[in-house]
Amino acid sequence: MSSEDAVREVAGRARTASHVLATATRATKDAALLAMADALEEAGERILSANAEDVARAEAGGTPANIVDRLRLDEGRLEAMAQGLRDVAGLPDPVGEVLRGSTLANGLELRQVRVPFGVVGMIYEARPNVTADAAGICLKAGNAVLLRGSSSARSSNAAIVETMRGALAASGLPEDVVQLVPGETHDSVKALMRARGLVDVLIPRGGAGLIRRVVEESTVPVIETGVGNCHVYVDASADLEQALAIVLNAKTQRTSVCNAAESLLVHQDVADAFLPAVVAALQHEGVLIHGDAAFAEHDDVVPVTDEDHAAEFLALEISAAVVPDVEGAIDHIRRFSTGHTEAIVARDQATIRRFVAAVDSAAVVVNASTRFTDGGEFGFGAEIGISTQKLHARGPMGLPEMTSSKYVVVGEGHVR
Amino acid sequence: MSSEDAVREVAGRARTASHVLATATRATKDAALLAMADALEEAGERILSANAEDVARAEAGGTPANIVDRLRLDEGRLEAMAQGLRDVAGLPDPVGEVLRGSTLANGLELRQVRVPFGVVGMIYEARPNVTADAAGICLKAGNAVLLRGSSSARSSNAAIVETMRGALAASGLPEDVVQLVPGETHDSVKALMRARGLVDVLIPRGGAGLIRRVVEESTVPVIETGVGNCHVYVDASADLEQALAIVLNAKTQRTSVCNAAESLLVHQDVADAFLPAVVAALQHEGVLIHGDAAFAEHDDVVPVTDEDHAAEFLALEISAAVVPDVEGAIDHIRRFSTGHTEAIVARDQATIRRFVAAVDSAAVVVNASTRFTDGGEFGFGAEIGISTQKLHARGPMGLPEMTSSKYVVVGEGHVR
Repeated sequence: MSSEDAVREVAGRARTASHVLATATRATKDAALLAMADALEEAGERILSANAEDVARAEAGGTPANIVDRLRLDEGRLEAMAQGLRDVAGLPDPVGEVLRGSTLANGLELRQVRVPFGVVGMIYEARPNVTADAAGICLKAGNAVLLRGSSSARSSNAAIVETMRGALAASGLPEDVVQLVPGETHDSVKALMRARGLVDVLIPRGGAGLIRRVVEESTVPVIETGVGNCHVYVDASADLEQALAIVLNAKTQRTSVCNAAESLLVHQDVADAFLPAVVAALQHEGVLIHGDAAFAEHDDVVPVTDEDHAAEFLALEISAAVVPDVEGAIDHIRRFSTGHTEAIVARDQATIRRFVAAVDSAAVVVNASTRFTDGGEFGFGAEIGISTQKLHARGPMGLPEMTSSKYVVVGEGHVR
Repeated sequence: MSSEDAVREVAGRARTASHVLATATRATKDAALLAMADALEEAGERILSANAEDVARAEAGGTPANIVDRLRLDEGRLEAMAQGLRDVAGLPDPVGEVLRGSTLANGLELRQVRVPFGVVGMIYEARPNVTADAAGICLKAGNAVLLRGSSSARSSNAAIVETMRGALAASGLPEDVVQLVPGETHDSVKALMRARGLVDVLIPRGGAGLIRRVVEESTVPVIETGVGNCHVYVDASADLEQALAIVLNAKTQRTSVCNAAESLLVHQDVADAFLPAVVAALQHEGVLIHGDAAFAEHDDVVPVTDEDHAAEFLALEISAAVVPDVEGAIDHIRRFSTGHTEAIVARDQATIRRFVAAVDSAAVVVNASTRFTDGGEFGFGAEIGISTQKLHARGPMGLPEMTSSKYVVVGEGHVR
């Protein structure tokens, strides 16, 4: 069977299973989630030994240590996966929520109701915990999920999925609501991207290259996630001590995440006061600064290029520039931002209003770190990714973002 | 200049203009809409004479009379275009609406706020009134619009757009928030579909072929509209007199629209009672019935094929079949529906609940005609199309559906 046929076959099974899941009650779904969590704990030894195979293969292949670390499971991470499923069970069911409703002039009753998408395809990289997290969120929102993890995690993913499917079958839901996509080459990703009609939405999670490829090649609708060239703009009206703490936190608290700051903009009127302090503090934390002329007057700051301004470093590096005013900051952000998160540090209300209105990103943050753009921090309880596109969902995506809606129109013989 | 460069240039101008429009107040936008309406009336003579050129060209080229009719403007249609703009001015501004808001445990204030998409591309066929309607809806929702009408309407569209741009300039908004896409070949559509980053969303309105091509080729996110193979299912528990009225209305009240019924399903227990009446009534209205074995026992019913079951006839034709029960109807609909609108005629509550829950279409209608799936009927005040996809918007799209959202996060020095 060709890769395309194999993928279409599992997608067809997912579609059929999704019909049952779409009308399952919350009680049934929650029971399945709890059973999946228990099963993951019970199968801990088997999952960890499958994971050890993946880790050994990765190490033998010379995979960098930070990637191997993402791949590695231990008791703690396994427990966190199980707890994640239990947390999702505790969240309200988005399916069935009435979004709008009214009675029309002619007496027709109109309701717009949340319904599942149907079949969701997840394409992701090394972390095997995404396998359980994505399955849990999709299931709670009534969607069958097709999981296409990286081949480096194939043994782990197979063990996790097999365990969850066993628990599903025991809970009375079709086990095909959670399936691995067969095939380890790019052909299977391609087949998934062409399965329009069988798959309702694709969510790629991973590096910028993966996401761009899916966005460009997919005929299945895509929710673009996660590339973040996040800016912090320090205005002339800022509390500079607060600004320093926010810049440091946004850049250094965790560097490998999409909501870390990658670019710093400073109003020219406070450049003399702020630059020495921020350069010293960032360098003290080991941050390499790619700076414009004003920044480059300081030791160890390297000259910035447009590429640096556009870069998502995901490392202890930052681009930095002095701007004439808030309009200069807005223009710079329009030119270089990926539309994830931009922060302003300022006390002047008119400046803050202007920045919030003019900056068109998934999140605009006032006097706080960019690191808060996160489903957990926002109180969503679960997050499947952070959308940086404008269609359907923008920003952290929780359970409601994993649904569509339909109109239910009720009459008593109404005709036009 | 190549077609691609020409399209990217207008798209770039639209992007720049959209920055001004995005933060314009409702008062400014409404004043512009009213000025555009007045200008269309004042320029009536010029627009009608441009339209006469298009009509003459179409007639000389042997265009079918029904297409020429769609192309033709007269005083009444022009007045309706102006009134449409005034109606949109009267609708609430979706931009700035707070969708959710809360204060997080750490004191951060979180708001999810409606914002414009930015730049919307409309690709549409013969009707020149879409030019004014789409411009009005996009403008009110804060979006710059790129209009790619059909070449058959080029003189009309040019005159309408020129008139509206003049009114915009006089109202203090950048006239580039409304632009025609240059070029009349498919190359300009292609360039629009590749303008990711400059165009935020494409909305194709027209025949199934056009829509499919845009969905498959576009790297810009697309909202799929309008193909409707709508079903009416007559249950065993139906009031058959009501069912007859609904079937007739759904099929014959207007045949060229996407919410007209194209398929009829009848529960076997009422087939003997209902088929003679419905066949006679439909045939009396001139409807050709493509029927299964039970229907084909009646005179002048032609045998149905799977293609007929899947067809959107947009004419006095209907496919028809007897099904064993509501589950049979649901299965049939899953197999053949385009996911636009499906109706059930029934009195039994459990059957109705099952149909509403299991049928996954943009609209599910109980005891009423499929013809009610419409922004006007739903009370939206304006409609830019009917989405048949599950991402972002589903069903009739009014002003709120022409927006995205962003999160605004306000703190006082918050760090993680």
